[in-house]
Amino acid sequence: MHFAPTSQRKIMPMSDLKNDRFIRALLREPVDMTPVWMMRQAGRYLPEYRETRSKAGDFLSLCKNTELACEVTLQPLERFELDAAILFSDILTIPDAMGLGLYFEAGEGPRFRKTVRTEADVAELQVVDTAKDLSYVTDAVSEIRRALSGRVPLIGFSGSPWTLATYMVEGGSSKDFRHVKAMLYREPEVLHQLLDVLADSVIDYLNAQIRAGAQVVQLFDSWGGSLSDAAFPEFSLRYMRKIVDGLIREHDGRKVPVIVFTKGGGLWLPELADCGADALGLDWTMNLGTARQLVGARVALQGNMDPSVLYGRPDQIRTEVDRILRAYGHGPGHVFNLGHGIHQYVEPESARVLVDAVHELSLQYHTAG
Amino acid sequence: MHFAPTSQRKIMPMSDLKNDRFIRALLREPVDMTPVWMMRQAGRYLPEYRETRSKAGDFLSLCKNTELACEVTLQPLERFELDAAILFSDILTIPDAMGLGLYFEAGEGPRFRKTVRTEADVAELQVVDTAKDLSYVTDAVSEIRRALSGRVPLIGFSGSPWTLATYMVEGGSSKDFRHVKAMLYREPEVLHQLLDVLADSVIDYLNAQIRAGAQVVQLFDSWGGSLSDAAFPEFSLRYMRKIVDGLIREHDGRKVPVIVFTKGGGLWLPELADCGADALGLDWTMNLGTARQLVGARVALQGNMDPSVLYGRPDQIRTEVDRILRAYGHGPGHVFNLGHGIHQYVEPESARVLVDAVHELSLQYHTAG
Repeated sequence: MHFAPTSQRKIMPMSDLKNDRFIRALLREPVDMTPVWMMRQAGRYLPEYRETRSKAGDFLSLCKNTELACEVTLQPLERFELDAAILFSDILTIPDAMGLGLYFEAGEGPRFRKTVRTEADVAELQVVDTAKDLSYVTDAVSEIRRALSGRVPLIGFSGSPWTLATYMVEGGSSKDFRHVKAMLYREPEVLHQLLDVLADSVIDYLNAQIRAGAQVVQLFDSWGGSLSDAAFPEFSLRYMRKIVDGLIREHDGRKVPVIVFTKGGGLWLPELADCGADALGLDWTMNLGTARQLVGARVALQGNMDPSVLYGRPDQIRTEVDRILRAYGHGPGHVFNLGHGIHQYVEPESARVLVDAVHELSLQYHTAG
Repeated sequence: MHFAPTSQRKIMPMSDLKNDRFIRALLREPVDMTPVWMMRQAGRYLPEYRETRSKAGDFLSLCKNTELACEVTLQPLERFELDAAILFSDILTIPDAMGLGLYFEAGEGPRFRKTVRTEADVAELQVVDTAKDLSYVTDAVSEIRRALSGRVPLIGFSGSPWTLATYMVEGGSSKDFRHVKAMLYREPEVLHQLLDVLADSVIDYLNAQIRAGAQVVQLFDSWGGSLSDAAFPEFSLRYMRKIVDGLIREHDGRKVPVIVFTKGGGLWLPELADCGADALGLDWTMNLGTARQLVGARVALQGNMDPSVLYGRPDQIRTEVDRILRAYGHGPGHVFNLGHGIHQYVEPESARVLVDAVHELSLQYHTAG
């Protein structure tokens, strides 16, 4: 065990990490201030990102170019005092590796050339072999770890099985999830088969990321909130639990925390808190103090500012940061984040105001040291 | 008072209503079986609707044609044993009457020719005078009441101020509510001014519908769920409460129940239950039994089946109806509905299965008579 019991040590960086605030918070250990990162922090709101991306061509080429993926991953860290880096990639790499042909049309979101609609379509799918089919992702992880040189931890990630299934069955983004829900209600056993192949693939994929150097992993259950209260445990939560159970939880002598983020899952927080994850992501619809009461000591919480707050003036952003920190209250177990990816129209300076405000205003809530 | 105390009467239709199950359920009075209607029950899934609409031209022309609006309102009642009719109209009639120029592009959803983005834009808006600017709506209400001839109650409706504001500021539908949320976080006082004009307009509009014959009214807060837990009470709930306070609650000697439906508002149910409404609409993300426990005797509940269940086979639809009825349990106060509008690709026969299953399977939960 790399971790000494909390009582025996001061808050010192782990041997190979200059800043381990993020990992400590995920494990509900004392920190000096609340760590912060932003979903989609390497993204279109940064002019330097737009420049690198124009060099790469389209979005997917950028994901598949190890050097450039590493470059954009580090860009936000050059600007802001972020406490974590997140692998630059897409949640749809797994279905792409399964042969569905992912592509992006300008302003249209992701699309697949091939959809998965029938029992025969599902039967054709094979569990992804990350080493063979997704080495560009693990290469990027290793490269980013080298470039980070222990500055902050690196987050690896994957889409949840349900979320991946929505794109695979619909053939892209959807408003009403017509085809995948028709499958859910009409041929639930076919959907279960699809989710099972996906869960096994995600386990292989995330474990490969962990072996390559990802120090934390996050499951994005972006569309879990579209399910009914009866369908969520059966078609999303169940497979996330299977994944969490199958993950490498300790690597290089250190725990690898797992974050599960079901957008729109506030009503199911008590069930989510028992899925085996170390932390749960929260969107902005739930009060963070209420959430903390509900989950108790079972998990840390990550969130939960509406990304639109970043359209406000600096004083307005600080007020909202303060409100969220106050809602969580004293003690460990909180990672500050947005409740969804940062919008492309936000001014980079507003992100700086956010990051600095979290650190400054959270000091009062942490007394360890 | 038209209503005698429950203990003094058998469940008999109101003098002028052959079927008052829906109104009784909203007022938490005993019923023989659970009433059911479907949001968007007069819609594209019905071939006869598509035929009438093709006669009218576009969607808005259909709303503005009294005779045809009446015709489509009654179409689903000719097919199914529904317990309520709902005025055929659109939630965006108020901003259209304010001069924003509503139009619909094929497959694109609603659009406005003019947007409301600045303080000056908001200052130009005037409270709508329904009698002058929206008489086509009240004409339709009167006409439908005549045509219904007391068969079932007629529901009038409006969008909530926040929901109307999202369309007015964005200029149409939106995924991220970029402009309206920028207004919320950057110029909240401007948004409050807009919401205030809208609330006054909705009061005038719904009261005019009630005077014209609407026996129940529903507020559609379709985008309330996009707000943060801190913003919802201030920018949506507050104005819905103002509206409920301003409505005619008794007309023609009978109570006029008010339903408030915040899609994605499950987390705020306790606050919503105190807004003065008689009933709350629920989408499919919340267990109906949990919801009932939370609201207690304060309000009735309407919902909450995922419309996608209607892609299932008859036995699968019945199973889901049964699950929802069981979740609510015994006693009055439940109106069965979908958690959102019925999808255009649903087979009409599946809607019949739903309606009949609700009536048949709910008998065991009602012992009054």
